[in-house]
Formats: sequence, C-alpha cells, structure tokens
Amino acid sequence: MTLTYPNFAFDITHRDQKSGARLGLLKTPHGTIETPNYIFCGTKAAIKALSPAQMIEAQTDIILSNTYHLMLQPGADLIEKMGGLHKFMNWNGPLLTDSGGFQVFSLGEGAMANEIKGKNHGKGHENKNLISITEEGCVFRSYVDGRKIKLTPESSMEIQRKLGADLLMQFDECTPYHVDKDYTARSMEMSMRWGDRCLAQFERHDNGAQGLYGIIQGGVHADLRRISAEYTADRPFFGTALGGCLGGSDEEMETVVAASLPYAHAERPVHFLGIGQIKDVFRFVHMGVDTFDCVIPTRLARHGSAFMQGVPGETINLKNAKYREDNTPLDERNAVSASCNYSKAYIHHLLKAGEILGMQILAQHNVATINRLMREIRTAIRSGTLDKLEKEWRTH
Amino acid sequence: MTLTYPNFAFDITHRDQKSGARLGLLKTPHGTIETPNYIFCGTKAAIKALSPAQMIEAQTDIILSNTYHLMLQPGADLIEKMGGLHKFMNWNGPLLTDSGGFQVFSLGEGAMANEIKGKNHGKGHENKNLISITEEGCVFRSYVDGRKIKLTPESSMEIQRKLGADLLMQFDECTPYHVDKDYTARSMEMSMRWGDRCLAQFERHDNGAQGLYGIIQGGVHADLRRISAEYTADRPFFGTALGGCLGGSDEEMETVVAASLPYAHAERPVHFLGIGQIKDVFRFVHMGVDTFDCVIPTRLARHGSAFMQGVPGETINLKNAKYREDNTPLDERNAVSASCNYSKAYIHHLLKAGEILGMQILAQHNVATINRLMREIRTAIRSGTLDKLEKEWRTH
Repeated sequence: MTLTYPNFAFDITHRDQKSGARLGLLKTPHGTIETPNYIFCGTKAAIKALSPAQMIEAQTDIILSNTYHLMLQPGADLIEKMGGLHKFMNWNGPLLTDSGGFQVFSLGEGAMANEIKGKNHGKGHENKNLISITEEGCVFRSYVDGRKIKLTPESSMEIQRKLGADLLMQFDECTPYHVDKDYTARSMEMSMRWGDRCLAQFERHDNGAQGLYGIIQGGVHADLRRISAEYTADRPFFGTALGGCLGGSDEEMETVVAASLPYAHAERPVHFLGIGQIKDVFRFVHMGVDTFDCVIPTRLARHGSAFMQGVPGETINLKNAKYREDNTPLDERNAVSASCNYSKAYIHHLLKAGEILGMQILAQHNVATINRLMREIRTAIRSGTLDKLEKEWRTH
Repeated sequence: MTLTYPNFAFDITHRDQKSGARLGLLKTPHGTIETPNYIFCGTKAAIKALSPAQMIEAQTDIILSNTYHLMLQPGADLIEKMGGLHKFMNWNGPLLTDSGGFQVFSLGEGAMANEIKGKNHGKGHENKNLISITEEGCVFRSYVDGRKIKLTPESSMEIQRKLGADLLMQFDECTPYHVDKDYTARSMEMSMRWGDRCLAQFERHDNGAQGLYGIIQGGVHADLRRISAEYTADRPFFGTALGGCLGGSDEEMETVVAASLPYAHAERPVHFLGIGQIKDVFRFVHMGVDTFDCVIPTRLARHGSAFMQGVPGETINLKNAKYREDNTPLDERNAVSASCNYSKAYIHHLLKAGEILGMQILAQHNVATINRLMREIRTAIRSGTLDKLEKEWRTH
C-alpha cells in the first residue's frame, strides 16, 4: 500500500524528560496546529450555540463533526454538493470527522460517555436503533426518519470523503464494557479487518486532501490492546486513535492507555476519542496523547456550568444562588469577551431567565478555558513544568 | 417644573420636502444616535440569542429592555447594585426602558402585538395575572413566583431610575382595543395624571442621567389622541411616545398617528412603541416618527424567518424545503458574517437539526437588515428619495 499523505505531517518538536509528554506540529491542508491540542465537537456541523467567529475568538485551532449525524441529516451528498463540510459550516481550519461507528454502536446519545468509561451496567449492545452487526458492517434505523441504513467500512470512507474533513477515522466497532473477553477479542479482530477495508477504500480515492487514523480497540484487556496497537502501527494510517471501552475507573483507563501507546506508531499523532475533562487531559498528555475531543465544553454550558481553573470538580454551576450577586467575571485570564465582560450575577440571571445568551457565554468561556489550558500545557512541556501547571489547574 | 435634560438633545438636522420625514441627532449620556433609528428588544436584559458584540457587528446603535420583566427577575435593586443595566448587560450604548405598564396590561406575552393592532377579539382586560387597576396604580401577580406586586407611576420611575437606562417611559395604562370610548377616555385621563406623577417623581431624583418620554394614548379616537398629544407637549418630557391601541388595520393605525403627531411637541423625538415591520417603518418615518422598537427581528429568527429586501411579506422562511440545496447567502448587502458567510442550505440544515446557531445567524441577519434599512432610509431622506427606496424594499 502506498499511502504517503503528502499534504500532512506530524513533527514531534520536543519531548518531556520526565514523562511521555511531547510537543508536535500537526500539519493538514487547512493549517498546522500545535499539539497537545483539543478538538471541539460540532456534532451536526455546528458547535452548540457558538459561531465559527466565536470559536476563533476563543482561540480554537481545530474542530470535529460527526459522520453519523451528518449522513442522516442533511446527508453526505448534499454537503459534498455544497462544497464540502468546511465551506458548508464556514470553518476554514483543520477539521476531523469520526467514522459513524461510535454513535451506531453506543447506547444512545446520553449514554455514550458512560459507555466509554464503563459506567453502563447493561450487557452488550442495547441501542434500540441497531439492527445487526455482521462482518460486512452494520444496519441501523435512522433516528431522523426511521429508515434502515447500512454502514460499512467502505461506505463510512465514502461518506467521510464526501464530507471532506482533513482527518478521518477508520470504521470500527466500539465494543461495550460489559461483554466478555472473547466477544471483545472477536470484535477487535473484526475492527482490524474493517481497518484494512477502510485503507483500501481510502486509497482508491485518495487525492492527498485527507489523512486517515487507525483506531486501537481491545477493551480493558492489555494483551488485546497491544495486538490492536501493533496492527495500527503496521498499517499506513496517518494517525492513531484510542477508542472503545476504557474501563470503569480512572485507574483502569490509565492502564488501558499504558497497554496501548507503547505499541502504537511512535511518530504518528495520537488522538484520544471522546475524552476531555481537565484531569484526563493532564493524565494522558503525560502519557503521550497529542489530541483530545469531548462534547463537555459545550454540554456543560447547556447545563449552566463553567470550567474553572483550580476548583474541585473542575467546574462551577452558575445556576447556584451564591452567584446571584457575584459581580466578578468568570476568568479574566481568558482573553475573550465571554470570560471577561459579564458578571457571574448576570450569567446567573440569564440562566434563570432561560436566555440563550447565558449558554452562549458559558460555551465560549469553556472553549476559551480549554484552549488556554492547552496553550499552558504546551508552554509547560517546553519548560519542563507540567507537574507544576497541573497543580495550578487541579485540586485533589 | 424645571426639567431641562442637560445631557440630552434632539436636533432635527433635515426635513423631507415631500413628507413629514426628518433626520435627527438624538444625544444621550451613552452616545448620540442618528434618527430615524430602530431600538432592538433585549427584554430580560439580553437580546435573544445575540451578544452585545454581535449586535455591534450588526451595526446596532440602541437597544431597550423591559422594566416589567427585570423588576420581577432579577429585580431592580440587584441591577442597581451590580452597577446598573448598561454594566450588567455589557451594553455601553444608548439604552431605553419601558414603564412596565404595557406588559402588565397586555393579555400575556404572545398576544401583545395583536392587542396593539386591535386583532384581539376579547373584551377588556383579560390578563389573568392582573388583579386590579386603580387611580393609585395596578396590582398583578408575578409570573415568576406568583407573589402580588403593585406598580404605580412612582414605583415605575424608581425602578427605571435604578435600572439606569438613558431613555425612560412614563407609566401609562395601555388601553385595549375592544373597550368603549368612555373607558378609553377615562383611561387616557388617568394616564395623563399618571404622567404628571411620573414627572414629579422623576424630578425628585433627576441627576441628568436620564430622559423621560410622555406617552400619547387615546385608542383609535382622533379627538382623544389630540388631547393626549397636547398633554405630552405641555409637559416637560424629553420625548414623545405613541402608545396604546392603534386600531384594527394598517389604515386605522395610520389615522391614529395622523391624529396624534400634529399635536405632539414638534422639537422632541417621537418613538413608536412596539411597532417595527418594514412596511410600518416606511409609513411612519414618512409621518415623522423618529424611532421604532419591536421584538420581531429576533422573534422571527426563532421561527426560522429572515427579513429580506423586496420579497412579499418582508420575510422568507428558511425551514422551507426549497432552501435545502440553496447555496446562496442570505444577503451580501449586509456587511455581517450572518448574512454573508452561510448558505441558506446550511441555515435550513441548522433549523432542521434544532441547532441554536441557526437562530443566532437569523437573529443577527435580521438585526443587520433592519439597521441597513434605517441607514438607507436616512440617506434617502437626505437625498429626497424615500419613495424610491420604499419601492426597492417593499413589494405590494
């Protein structure tokens, strides 16, 4: 296979002496980003409550959108016809799409994060819209209009090609937590075969505009994770992603990553799918993860919460009555209007009054806070002060 | 009475030769605006779905907020404590508050516009939260927590003083359409006595920071409108507002204005309360109205509609399937991202997907469109081409 990704590059420019942390430059046709970095979720071709201009004000480098949602509405053909996802959503920076598999296999939107983190106590696949999983791919029912839809490694690649993001993900089965090791092993092996089919399909249409990530599966089993990681390293993927079930506790998640990364390709960017609390970012930057994504910056905003440096639980909830007369801004260290120009009392009022602006302010603050976190992390890696920075951000 | 409004001015700089249209400069402590102009509604101390920065991008000069909503939540005392409404909502330009009366007397939020325009077929006051109207003032039940609240001319002035807007409205009874002339006359006379009490209360605390408008009532009756207009002209109000029931048709509304404005003070700014479709703006600018306000720019956005120059009904609805593959932007004549950088197909997608960004884009587009309308109207008055401009904007 001859995939060379001529318009992409990942240069590791600095390695931390005390940990696996590293600085990198991830080059795409829509610009180069510094890593470690954070990829914000624009699930349905839009960041919840924020315009691209507001994302840029918050110093955002890269965003993602979800293949599953877009293939159902408005459809990949329409987006291709409209000039591709960058143009469609007015985002000219680097852009990633996932494969669609995660949402198909997850237990419904609200339960996804619990599933990744092993907090779902059901057994096996319980997504009521999932009809079948076979070697060919999977069949599910559209949440938009109920029609049956087949998604295969080949069709996921085709859809992602039409969407036109810079960074793509292979199609994989996102194995749940509460299945036995045999199921997880068989599933992982199928995801590896699916990965090969993705590479073959990708190569058929490759014009240099996109870079494909392989995904490490294997559940919470160290031996399986190693096999899957070595598989991705042996194939001509551009990058490596950590996927699937990551265990039931922080420690288990760390074990899974420790069992995976040493066997991943050492020179490729590593993306952690769906993970992105502040504590996670610190832990996994230490272990060599280069990019993160998670819905929480904007989801927290919709629940009235703001990321805050150095507070227990990483967030404060502005709905709390104690902010009713708090005339201080959210955080003037973020050079963005949302964090500097409104009092907590005002945001409290907006949330109580049901004003969309409240959510918008919190969303921009949360994005700006995470972007500042990532900038400070990069600076700290360069100066060897990552542990000190972690102490400033986290309370234990 | 010695009210002189030293920090306020209204200079009429040009008068149209063919109509009552005029250009003016309305000076307030937070800046001078050119008139005719449009005052956008930030009902609960926030423009629906838009930040102050987005309002400024859309070239907005002046906004308003509603005393009724703010007195109930978060309360005028809190806003005063937080430094006043300008600081609270991060709006540093001219700002107007109404008296609270309109919402108290209206039949509930959805029915207000119908009531002004005489389209409500109920009889008398049917607001289920309104408990009593007496000479002293009115008593109503808070929609927030059910407590009984009294609002009087004096308390309305006190609340508006604490809120700290530049332009204030006297407290008046907003008489419904379907009451007889006797009721309307008695109501108007009471509003005149209330106006005197407002002036007295205003003067007690006047520090030059605020300017008070008197309101012309009198329902659809020309003789009453004249009496009310002459009343406002005889009192030391800074400006004149057109309020109350304006009739059941466009013609009736025009008759009401024609019966009022000749008797209003000729040198004071005239504000039209709650009126602001494009056709209304043209008709009443012709008759000498200087400022308008209406919720429709942002309300239309929430319903998926965009103001559009020269289309029947003034708007298009982006939910319509015909926009599914329409790759054109809303209107590149508006120099704002919302109007230029997104295709109708994308906005259609956002609305179908329930993304807040769709509403935000439409709200900013609608505000920008109305602001462009007002700029073009001012230019046309200067060059004597108002009729030509109206033909470009309106289809009949």
